[in-house]
Amino acid sequence: MRVIPATEFALKREVDYGSAQQNEAVKSIIEEVRRDGDAALRRFAERFDGVRVDDLRVTKQEIEAAYEQVDESFLAAIRAAAANIRRFHEKQLRSSWMDLQADGSILGQVIRPLRRVGLYVPGGKAAYPSSVLMNAIPAQVAGVPEIVMVTPPATAGAEGINPHILVAAAEAGVSEIYRVGGAQAVAALAYGTESIPAADKIVGPGNIYVALAKRYVFGAVDIDSIAGPSEIVVLADETADAAYVAADLLSQAEHDEMASAILITPSPELAEAVAREVDRQLSELPRRDIAAQSIRDYGAILTVTSLEEGIDAVNRLAPEHLEIIVREPFQHLGKIENAGAIFLGPYSSEPVGDYFAGPNHVLPTNGTARFSSPLNVDDFMKKSSVIYYSKEALLRDGEQIIALARHEGLDAHARAIQIRLEKEGTNHG
Amino acid sequence: MRVIPATEFALKREVDYGSAQQNEAVKSIIEEVRRDGDAALRRFAERFDGVRVDDLRVTKQEIEAAYEQVDESFLAAIRAAAANIRRFHEKQLRSSWMDLQADGSILGQVIRPLRRVGLYVPGGKAAYPSSVLMNAIPAQVAGVPEIVMVTPPATAGAEGINPHILVAAAEAGVSEIYRVGGAQAVAALAYGTESIPAADKIVGPGNIYVALAKRYVFGAVDIDSIAGPSEIVVLADETADAAYVAADLLSQAEHDEMASAILITPSPELAEAVAREVDRQLSELPRRDIAAQSIRDYGAILTVTSLEEGIDAVNRLAPEHLEIIVREPFQHLGKIENAGAIFLGPYSSEPVGDYFAGPNHVLPTNGTARFSSPLNVDDFMKKSSVIYYSKEALLRDGEQIIALARHEGLDAHARAIQIRLEKEGTNHG
Repeated sequence: MRVIPATEFALKREVDYGSAQQNEAVKSIIEEVRRDGDAALRRFAERFDGVRVDDLRVTKQEIEAAYEQVDESFLAAIRAAAANIRRFHEKQLRSSWMDLQADGSILGQVIRPLRRVGLYVPGGKAAYPSSVLMNAIPAQVAGVPEIVMVTPPATAGAEGINPHILVAAAEAGVSEIYRVGGAQAVAALAYGTESIPAADKIVGPGNIYVALAKRYVFGAVDIDSIAGPSEIVVLADETADAAYVAADLLSQAEHDEMASAILITPSPELAEAVAREVDRQLSELPRRDIAAQSIRDYGAILTVTSLEEGIDAVNRLAPEHLEIIVREPFQHLGKIENAGAIFLGPYSSEPVGDYFAGPNHVLPTNGTARFSSPLNVDDFMKKSSVIYYSKEALLRDGEQIIALARHEGLDAHARAIQIRLEKEGTNHG
Repeated sequence: MRVIPATEFALKREVDYGSAQQNEAVKSIIEEVRRDGDAALRRFAERFDGVRVDDLRVTKQEIEAAYEQVDESFLAAIRAAAANIRRFHEKQLRSSWMDLQADGSILGQVIRPLRRVGLYVPGGKAAYPSSVLMNAIPAQVAGVPEIVMVTPPATAGAEGINPHILVAAAEAGVSEIYRVGGAQAVAALAYGTESIPAADKIVGPGNIYVALAKRYVFGAVDIDSIAGPSEIVVLADETADAAYVAADLLSQAEHDEMASAILITPSPELAEAVAREVDRQLSELPRRDIAAQSIRDYGAILTVTSLEEGIDAVNRLAPEHLEIIVREPFQHLGKIENAGAIFLGPYSSEPVGDYFAGPNHVLPTNGTARFSSPLNVDDFMKKSSVIYYSKEALLRDGEQIIALARHEGLDAHARAIQIRLEKEGTNHG
């Protein structure tokens, strides 16, 4: 693993916006689903998934059968994780509120769950039960009454059913599951078909076609952020255990070749020791080819002259995951401006958060922690402003409102106030 | 104004995604700004605005001079509105929080303002001081240290300076103002130039080029929602004053030809009276051509058999603005699922909210209130998760975390936990 000064390092990975061909394909799939509904979904299942789908919806019996197929320890672990995730997200809940004014007016915000949310779950090996929990539970906690999961038929169909995904969905409060994947699933969630009513928001990871489809339908429905390549930054001093740090870097690097794992340290000894440990541990990993390429292309050990300089580098990188393994880590928390999730101390290894502790593992990637947040309960709620103006308040403020409306050349706005002042002012005076 | 049953009505207006030509133009402008920086901004100012711009940044002296040019009553009204907007948005502020666990672990959310926000303000007649307040004050309340305004040089330049915009910006806490408009301004905010550092988020309304540019740079920076055609729905019973209702419908209709103004009522008498009042008041309006076309193309009076049926129609329409002018309006508030801003009672005319009461006038348009919210303080803040796991918690939960990681085939994740259990478990046991 290369060791270089932090000042000489910049991480730049381009987001994949797809080729013109891929964008065209997605557009035509979406249009076909809008036009032909369920029939289009069945055609695409045959063409792309090689599966004939009769019932688009997964039945209650199939979900019950899935419970028979997973082992006890998996179920226990999923339930423990789900309880932690639920607890953490319940802390985020906010109530509607009112601000009562002396003049009798009431202003406020009504905060409500979305009605219907669609959750995309990829098929095959990329189908992670933990991601089902992380995407569905915040919606459940928000109070979304209809949480709809879609997943390719080769995963959830009679042929290739993945019982762990079905069990995770049931545990996380998913209310409907449909056998449909790819851009066609996104189109169904955005516009609805005979079998699948349209949703208000679509979340969840997917391949490039799913990502492009989400981008395309954005506006007709809401979407979550488009996941880019992900990263971990470990900020560590000489008190850190090199083997722990190396293991944490590799846990990110094994995700994919574009992932980035970076150590920032003022300790030359730790830098050397972690470089050695990464080489040693890498050779033992089942996914060593992926991890090695990630470390080579996007990994680095950055040396700094002080922890303060290290924190500046962290804020520039705005990493998805940040571990702070130093003496007194809380001392530095207040200085961290940009990071998706912050792991403090030697026992808060990234997988603790990926699977179990409770905070969400859907995090802003590729530097977007500058302006984005982990998936959270707010993402599944919407606000409405409430304005109840009293007669007294209108009579008091009316002339100023009229002045502002007139100034902007919006005469009908002014007249809507004027007509009330004329009638009510007379009664009043 | 046409009177039809609510069951026969649907409102469908397409969002403008621009022509291929417009999209190409925007793309090439953005690329030129990325390549040539300030020089590109100056070239575009000459080409599009017909203005030679020397200093891109508006000086303190120009802002002081603007205060000399606006009259007392405007300044007083702007200050009163700003105080109300500030008060309402301060109620939305949230603190970072921690959840302390019995095992010594700490989980939480750090909630912080964005560092730098760009506010687009259109030039010419569409430059509304009220919109400057509505976009900038939530950022100011959130604690954003750098609030940057951009506006075309023909508005803020030496030739066509609009002092009301400059004064509103100063009152709303804008920290820098630049003479640059159009897609090139969006590019400058997204990627930065020699004079204008890049921002984390871009908000504010603009023409189709500005909207397309925001869509294009989304991902590199955050953006607010793209404003579509706007609407008002008035839900009223026989207690409503037909002249008030008609005036409020027209205050929306005067905005533009695509605006929609809809009355929903169970009272045939009110329906007739409002139809007559709209005709009568329309003839007196300076902007009657715009308002008449809006009423003809997108306006309607919808009759329902009950207020409950009316509320169903409201929720289907998901209007930007909703007025409820009925006996006991609060009785129905809990049933309203989809609306950007809800105005209750006869004195809460829409312009009260557009200018003065405090809630934001940047609202979800064209049915997006199903999943979007008024502009608010959360839009200018970001969250980071915090995970501090204790040794005790890790030893307790480690095996379950390993089980989940192994199940998903992510062995390096499992090893990051395993290596700690091996070392710490020994010490522990």
